[in-house]
Amino acid sequence: MTALDRSTGVAAAQGFRAAGVAAGIKASGNLDLALIVNDGPGTAAAGVFTTNKVKAAPVLWSQQVLTTASLRAVVLNSGGANACTGPEGFQDTHATAEKVADVLGAGAIDVAVCSTGLIGERLPMDAVKSGVDIAAKGLAPGAEASLAAATAVMTTDSHPKQTALSRDGWTIGGFAKGAGMCAPNMATMLSVVTTDAAVDAPALDAALKAAVAVTFNRLDVDGGTSTNDTVIAMASGASGVTPDPAAFAEALQAVCADLVAQLQADAEGVTKHVSITVAGAATDAEAVAAARAVARDPLCKTAFFGSDPNWGRIAMAVGNAPTDFDPQSLDITINGVTVCRAGGRGDDRSLADLTGTDITVEIDLHAGTGTGTVLTTDLSHAYVEENSAYSS
Amino acid sequence: MTALDRSTGVAAAQGFRAAGVAAGIKASGNLDLALIVNDGPGTAAAGVFTTNKVKAAPVLWSQQVLTTASLRAVVLNSGGANACTGPEGFQDTHATAEKVADVLGAGAIDVAVCSTGLIGERLPMDAVKSGVDIAAKGLAPGAEASLAAATAVMTTDSHPKQTALSRDGWTIGGFAKGAGMCAPNMATMLSVVTTDAAVDAPALDAALKAAVAVTFNRLDVDGGTSTNDTVIAMASGASGVTPDPAAFAEALQAVCADLVAQLQADAEGVTKHVSITVAGAATDAEAVAAARAVARDPLCKTAFFGSDPNWGRIAMAVGNAPTDFDPQSLDITINGVTVCRAGGRGDDRSLADLTGTDITVEIDLHAGTGTGTVLTTDLSHAYVEENSAYSS
Repeated sequence: MTALDRSTGVAAAQGFRAAGVAAGIKASGNLDLALIVNDGPGTAAAGVFTTNKVKAAPVLWSQQVLTTASLRAVVLNSGGANACTGPEGFQDTHATAEKVADVLGAGAIDVAVCSTGLIGERLPMDAVKSGVDIAAKGLAPGAEASLAAATAVMTTDSHPKQTALSRDGWTIGGFAKGAGMCAPNMATMLSVVTTDAAVDAPALDAALKAAVAVTFNRLDVDGGTSTNDTVIAMASGASGVTPDPAAFAEALQAVCADLVAQLQADAEGVTKHVSITVAGAATDAEAVAAARAVARDPLCKTAFFGSDPNWGRIAMAVGNAPTDFDPQSLDITINGVTVCRAGGRGDDRSLADLTGTDITVEIDLHAGTGTGTVLTTDLSHAYVEENSAYSS
Repeated sequence: MTALDRSTGVAAAQGFRAAGVAAGIKASGNLDLALIVNDGPGTAAAGVFTTNKVKAAPVLWSQQVLTTASLRAVVLNSGGANACTGPEGFQDTHATAEKVADVLGAGAIDVAVCSTGLIGERLPMDAVKSGVDIAAKGLAPGAEASLAAATAVMTTDSHPKQTALSRDGWTIGGFAKGAGMCAPNMATMLSVVTTDAAVDAPALDAALKAAVAVTFNRLDVDGGTSTNDTVIAMASGASGVTPDPAAFAEALQAVCADLVAQLQADAEGVTKHVSITVAGAATDAEAVAAARAVARDPLCKTAFFGSDPNWGRIAMAVGNAPTDFDPQSLDITINGVTVCRAGGRGDDRSLADLTGTDITVEIDLHAGTGTGTVLTTDLSHAYVEENSAYSS
């Protein structure tokens, strides 16, 4: 596995076991509970959580337990977000962690919890608890267990998303779920990444934050940030190898980027995979803000759906971004054709062929050296259908 | 006309004449050039323009001429935005104003210009200039001329939008066009409002800014602000009546609000008219920001389209807004049913009937006394169709 390998994931690294089971939380009877256990010897852990002020109970719980920078396990359920459920919802999360701790002979403080599904409904706790018992019995290392865990967290995802990468005696693997960055109803973004590299908690935390900033946080399907978004990383140290920090950071970023590519490709209603790169901004942050403004603009997104190189809409969106530039210097290149040059008409827009799945937009503001890329999708009939035709 | 009267508009007030003609700018042969002339005796004028950094040539021109706070005429065209057209585009706008000035015996500095249509293309200036000649010959006061002018500025609008209101011997009337707040391609928002009240330029400017802030600027169809958005007000003083400032401001706001209601009802792909009111914010500005976050969220908008009282999506959107509040205090009421109370499940969501055209969302943050309302629409299949199926 010197290259990314999507046939395995969260239980690929030494020291980790996983399970994915049907606990009966989903009415469909599909897999709905995943358990990831770190058998050590190390227990370093780090997490990145939603910035939404409305945080689900499992987010509040996991933020709290991760102040120790140590985890033995993560339990995840689909079929319910446990968000906007008040003190009772928080007690449910606590009870879930207690149940996992009992089964593993650990403390509740060693267990993170993630949930995804409809907001505002309590979880069926009998099903959750019996699901933990079943999952604990099925814990195993390797590809089959990785796939089951990745499958159990799916909501509107059409397929499980996982990847793994090995380098110099150590491995990083993980899964992610999410069919929109924002879909508190059904498509919260959750990810667990594991490694057997011998990295301590501060190093893991720094590498995770750096990787998330340029991978998960650069995917913007529909502009929202859910109540449950969570990425958790755990390091077992079981390989006995302490990697070069830069090599570890690079590998972790590669794993996260591969998971994000899978999220983008399976976003709700997606027909186009759009990459928007802004160069020449005053700062990298302004470049990302400008790219995000295009990624979120419904007129740009419907034009992408229509395979229409409509650069005027892109100019409008960039002009509304919190980004300084001279409109007379704006260049816009779509799939290699510079359709807008120096703020005006460039090459003939009909030369830009957008009929394929991949669309690349390159914007140069000529206002500095800041750059940034945001990945997004189009706004299609299928997106509207998927998000309007269901009753909650 | 003590009540709003949509049978007339921009040429209802004394001292104004208008025309709307087919100049040949649009390939369809439809009306595409409007001319509004103020015969005085007063020439007070004020304008409010797009905040987009990418401003169309006519916006740059009109901002410049309005530094005098005086106008004799406004000329408007559909069929081309004259945005991202460089120095040549600005020269085209200047030449248009010169042409109108020649015909009227005025100076170019007395003429504002507005354009709407596709970004990035030059205007056919021969057609524009001959259109001005035709329009000048057809200038007339009253209902028929008002309607022609309101029709000539339409793009994807399905019908002209105008209104007028008379009080105590003076009248305010106007038109607006726009099928989205943001659609630089085809649906820029333009409006001209005229009055025969004897108000001076500072009073007109203050009243216009106040009215626009709570009417045009509170409509948010798709989150964008176009390169051409313009509202211009002109006062002829021909009634000889100087109204009470508060009465004038109230009437001007009523006229603007009626135009906005027509814009909302005719937005691209609209099937729902949604009013989002936030109360209990720290400030009015935070209330508006929170309401706007809901108005722009595609998951909320698709839920409105689906007649789905999906309050979890609204909680998510409010949680992402730049607004301080305690999530445990959040109340959400949809069409009179408080579906979310104290941050959790409230009354049964099935009691909220959203099958009609009008949807009212009331959000209470319980964090202060700030309030604000934003009007929006749903995100429908027709919106996607209208904005993706056309080639630019």
